[in-house]
Amino acid sequence: MNYPVQIEKLINLFAKLPGIGHKTAERIVFHILSEPIEYSQELSKILQNLKRDLKKCKICGNYSEKDICEICSDENRDKTKICVVEDPRDLYIIENLKIYNGLYHILFGLISPIDGISPEMLNIDSLINRVTDNVKEIIFAFSPTAEAETTSFYISKLLKDKNLKITKLAYGLPVGSNIRYADIVTLTRSFLNREVIS
Amino acid sequence: MNYPVQIEKLINLFAKLPGIGHKTAERIVFHILSEPIEYSQELSKILQNLKRDLKKCKICGNYSEKDICEICSDENRDKTKICVVEDPRDLYIIENLKIYNGLYHILFGLISPIDGISPEMLNIDSLINRVTDNVKEIIFAFSPTAEAETTSFYISKLLKDKNLKITKLAYGLPVGSNIRYADIVTLTRSFLNREVIS
Repeated sequence: MNYPVQIEKLINLFAKLPGIGHKTAERIVFHILSEPIEYSQELSKILQNLKRDLKKCKICGNYSEKDICEICSDENRDKTKICVVEDPRDLYIIENLKIYNGLYHILFGLISPIDGISPEMLNIDSLINRVTDNVKEIIFAFSPTAEAETTSFYISKLLKDKNLKITKLAYGLPVGSNIRYADIVTLTRSFLNREVIS
Repeated sequence: MNYPVQIEKLINLFAKLPGIGHKTAERIVFHILSEPIEYSQELSKILQNLKRDLKKCKICGNYSEKDICEICSDENRDKTKICVVEDPRDLYIIENLKIYNGLYHILFGLISPIDGISPEMLNIDSLINRVTDNVKEIIFAFSPTAEAETTSFYISKLLKDKNLKITKLAYGLPVGSNIRYADIVTLTRSFLNREVIS
C-alpha cells in the first residue's frame, strides 16, 4: 500500500534535494500537510516564479533580478580585481567580511574528473573573456580541496599570457586553533608559508 | 549584503521544516536554482493544491482524496479492530506488514505535557466516538516512549466502561540483536514478558 499519489510525488521531489533522504522527505511532506494551507501556498508561489524572477548576471553569473547584478553595475567597485568563487553562496560569505571591494565571478562548480565535471561545464569561458587589460588581479577563493587546485591550475594556464597577479586564499592554522591538534597538511603549509613578524 | 529577496524568503520557508537548518535550507534553494525550471514548477504545482486535494478521512483521520479513506470504506476490512497510531506514516508501515486487516485511527501526535501537547489537541474524541459495541479490540501501535505510555493510559481510561480488549505492541529484543548489547530496560521487559515455548 502506498501513500496517496500527491504525497508520493512530493516525497520523490524532495528526496532529490541534496542532504535529504527518503525518510526525511516523508517527514517534510507530512509536516507540510500538518501546517496551515498558507505555508504550502507561499512555498508554491515563490517556487512558481523563482527561475523566472532570478536570472544569472551576464557578467559574473550571480543570481539577480536584473540582467547585470548589483555588484557588477556598481560604479564604486574596484574593477581591477576579480574574485573567483565556486558557488553564489561563497560570494556572500566574502562580501560580508567587508574587506573586499572588487568584482566576482561564479564558476558554478569546480573541475572534478571523478564526478564527471569538465571545464566546459563551468562558467570559465566568460571569466577568460572578462579578463581585459584593466584587470590586474584574479583571486581564487575556493575551499582547499584537490578540485580547487585543479581548477586554479587550469584557469591560471589559460590566463598565463595576460599581465596579471593571480592569488588564492592563504592556507594556515585556523585562528584560535591548537597546533597540537592541527592536521599535518595544514601545519606543513602553515610552516612553509610562515609570515614575517619583523 | 543579503541574497535576493526570493532566495531569502525561500530559505526561511525551508528552514521551518523539521530537520532542516539554515545552512541546509541555503543548499536546497541554490540546488533548486541550478535545476531545470521544470523541477521548481512541478514542486510548486503539487504544493499549490496539496492541502485542497488531500482531506483528512472523516472516520480515521488519514489523508485521502475522498471524505472517507480507502481503508475505512473497504467492506472486506475487519471492523471489530482499530489500530491506533501516532502519525499517518505509521499506518503505512503496519499496513505493509500484511498481517493486519482491521481499521486504523490516527491521533496526529501523542500526549506530551513537556511539549505542551494536551489530549484535546489530538484526534482522540473521534476515536472514543467510534468505539461502538461492534468494536472488540483497540491496538496501540506506538513507538515505546513515555508519551506513548501516557497516551495509552489516558485513552484506556476513557474506554474502560466498554467491553473491549486493549492491546499494545510487544516490547522485547529486536530480532537479530545480541543480548549482551541490549539496553537494560528492553532486556528487563523482554525477561518479564518472556514467551512460552512449550
